[in-house]
Amino acid sequence: MVDLSQIGEFDLIKRIRKGLGFKNKGVVVGIGDDSAAVRLTRGLILIASTDSLVEGVHFKSDTISPSQLGRKSVAVNVSDIAAMGGIPCYLLISIGIPPSLSVEYIDGLYDGVKEATGSYNVIVVGGDTFRSDGQLIISITILGEIEEGLLVRRGGAKVGDKIFVTGSLGDSALGLEMLESGISDNGPVKATQQTIHIDEVISRHILPTPRLEEGRLLATKRLASAMIDTSDGLASDLRRICEESVVGAMIYLKELPISEAVNDIAISRDKSPYDYALYGGEDYELLFTVRENRVKDITRYWKVMKNPIKEIGEIIKEDVGIVVIDEVHNVRPLTREGYDHFSGIKG
Amino acid sequence: MVDLSQIGEFDLIKRIRKGLGFKNKGVVVGIGDDSAAVRLTRGLILIASTDSLVEGVHFKSDTISPSQLGRKSVAVNVSDIAAMGGIPCYLLISIGIPPSLSVEYIDGLYDGVKEATGSYNVIVVGGDTFRSDGQLIISITILGEIEEGLLVRRGGAKVGDKIFVTGSLGDSALGLEMLESGISDNGPVKATQQTIHIDEVISRHILPTPRLEEGRLLATKRLASAMIDTSDGLASDLRRICEESVVGAMIYLKELPISEAVNDIAISRDKSPYDYALYGGEDYELLFTVRENRVKDITRYWKVMKNPIKEIGEIIKEDVGIVVIDEVHNVRPLTREGYDHFSGIKG
Repeated sequence: MVDLSQIGEFDLIKRIRKGLGFKNKGVVVGIGDDSAAVRLTRGLILIASTDSLVEGVHFKSDTISPSQLGRKSVAVNVSDIAAMGGIPCYLLISIGIPPSLSVEYIDGLYDGVKEATGSYNVIVVGGDTFRSDGQLIISITILGEIEEGLLVRRGGAKVGDKIFVTGSLGDSALGLEMLESGISDNGPVKATQQTIHIDEVISRHILPTPRLEEGRLLATKRLASAMIDTSDGLASDLRRICEESVVGAMIYLKELPISEAVNDIAISRDKSPYDYALYGGEDYELLFTVRENRVKDITRYWKVMKNPIKEIGEIIKEDVGIVVIDEVHNVRPLTREGYDHFSGIKG
Repeated sequence: MVDLSQIGEFDLIKRIRKGLGFKNKGVVVGIGDDSAAVRLTRGLILIASTDSLVEGVHFKSDTISPSQLGRKSVAVNVSDIAAMGGIPCYLLISIGIPPSLSVEYIDGLYDGVKEATGSYNVIVVGGDTFRSDGQLIISITILGEIEEGLLVRRGGAKVGDKIFVTGSLGDSALGLEMLESGISDNGPVKATQQTIHIDEVISRHILPTPRLEEGRLLATKRLASAMIDTSDGLASDLRRICEESVVGAMIYLKELPISEAVNDIAISRDKSPYDYALYGGEDYELLFTVRENRVKDITRYWKVMKNPIKEIGEIIKEDVGIVVIDEVHNVRPLTREGYDHFSGIKG
């Protein structure tokens, strides 16, 4: 194990550049100058977003490998571009490094960054490394581009729009719970249906897939009136759409897309799968609204997509707020706080 | 004092938006969506840079006020745009907040950000707040624009170019030393020439001025062949120019621009002002090289500038390395490590 203090910042940056220093025709100045300089496609506008992962807050280093962490850091940022309907192009990565961290850890982290940027066609053009006295901190800014007329904001939902979500909800939160309970670490056991399900939700947590292709389709076909990625959980993220759009929302509990894995694991632990779907964060699915007269189009266009979509509710007037219709047709307000404050629902 | 845990992230972001949510015609989507969306001036390319300030590493909260910290965080990022010859336009700000921090502190920080962005004509278009278990972390990405043909890189220096620097060197490092020794806190004393000097160097440390106008003049008149801002000290930053340009450099010790304040304070403490000028970081002056036949032009163009420039040396062949000619005409290698490894020089 080589300690970081043995190589110093100059050599660390050289090491990083070596791994990431590839360019494309848009990159005028890449890593290693005061600023990066890049060209955008003519006629497109710039989109930019920043997201940080902090050890102990967003991840624990004993439940995610350095390379997985690198991939996830890129993926969650790409997801913000997907949620606008844009194309990710470049990124800047700042890393706050505790002095005790090994060079091998950093190498692993950058290997993951390299793999993820390669698969999303994104180029690392700059960054910053600094000493952190405590936690490992990864702060990424992603730069992308989009046709100005196509970008999908959070504030475009109107009363009557249908609410859709891609994929399934709650997997990542349940995966985190499985990871933290150490259930996956019980050594070699015979694979049962449930151990397979546990692996599934854990991998959803460790390596979320940003819904880039889906977001782009929704934007280019002008299908979505508002869109967000589900990073904090359906309840929180739907609230963001409603606040920006000045509307309310009605969600049908039984329409929530819940994977077999979440259903199986939650029920076997006497928990509600709906709670994971409503409040679990980090799924990085797309939550979006569609004008009623475009719903048939979306079904048609979606045939080419691997990841399914599900209609889960409808935009209503602001004064009603955000409500859930449960299985016995009760209407209950949806707060963002989670199970304790929402005790009326059981799966 | 209102504790941050009392208001929650939603309200915090609202509070921040309220303070910073102004826009200009280039901003299509500002704070409060998945990504910001902005237009660049037609024909210009994007420049982007990221820089973080971490409590305990880059600042101590007992020697800088929240508002000063906000201003400094913006200034050091603007300086990276200045060092390319560009125009700063937008920024994204990520803040890692320890739970114990007061809302008043955050308000003060954002007041400083607001003041600085206003004075540099930069608009905050996005960001991220997250919980930090330990230190306060401020991570900024600045976005700017420049004519592709005008940008000044680190790698453009050639043998025979003259080396210049703006302003004076070492003030910020000495200011930090004064701050940390508590010398400025001795209560109301009669202002002597030295207490005035101490205030001067401290304010250079607390509120560096990015040399935006200077960088822009050097770029638009194509006067600089290579450029960097002095964030880590002349020795380190000159090394970066030399490495990127594959050249060596020769610096004349007696030509280093040293302020009266640095000279006075250092000598009265039996220290070498040259050491501060060579190794002191955070001056955020521009260090640049000029082709020999443009030196007369630079003198002419510079007449309109308030901040002076000084010719301090010359680019030489790579194999000679980076050397300093001292006052008795000895040639000594300039290492980046500082005084201990460079014991031959005395002020």
